Amino acid sequence: MNDNLSQTFAALADPTRRAMLARLSQGEANVSDLAKPFLKAMSLPAITKHLKVLEKAGLITKTKDAQWRPCKLNGAPLKDATNWMEQYRAFWEESFDRLDAYLKTVTKEKRMKGKSHERKK
Amino acid sequence: MNDNLSQTFAALADPTRRAMLARLSQGEANVSDLAKPFLKAMSLPAITKHLKVLEKAGLITKTKDAQWRPCKLNGAPLKDATNWMEQYRAFWEESFDRLDAYLKTVTKEKRMKGKSHERKK
Repeated sequence: MNDNLSQTFAALADPTRRAMLARLSQGEANVSDLAKPFLKAMSLPAITKHLKVLEKAGLITKTKDAQWRPCKLNGAPLKDATNWMEQYRAFWEESFDRLDAYLKTVTKEKRMKGKSHERKK
Repeated sequence: MNDNLSQTFAALADPTRRAMLARLSQGEANVSDLAKPFLKAMSLPAITKHLKVLEKAGLITKTKDAQWRPCKLNGAPLKDATNWMEQYRAFWEESFDRLDAYLKTVTKEKRMKGKSHERKK
């Protein structure tokens, strides 16, 4: 049971927090820059709370620069989460294989019906 | 803003639910089989609640077999979640590149110090 993994997934389970990560993937930003797009929809304390969740999960780090304190994205927890998901890759690939097989059957049936229809003409 | 994604991540943010998915990756199982390993630690209603979260997120589906109703793992939401993570791959690869570069510098410095030490002898 990996508690870091729970913390990472919980942090990612929110569109505001994912949007913050998307912003940080463009480059470092300070809190007020990060807050700007959300200020119409929510209060500054709500925004800081989201940032704290991301920070606690290790997804962002605040640099020590006292004057500016920019945040930056930290990819390591995402790597762990992706590694966890990778175990299940067979399950989504398998379902697409099954879909693919199904579509092939349907297309084949359609083509055969088309031919028998032509023959009847 | 993708709400399905939030639902998937929220469902994965719990070690019991991840353990249930791990069990289902071994093959279909009915609710009582899935519940068994957790019955000492939690109540049956708590277990069913976890299963409902997984089902609502589309990570498991209950088959229609009225008598047995086995659950099975559904990989599609995991595929979407992995695709979302993939955008950030550069961030974890970059941090490992940086670590790698750092380790190379440290090793080089150590080697150089060793040599100067040898020369002093």
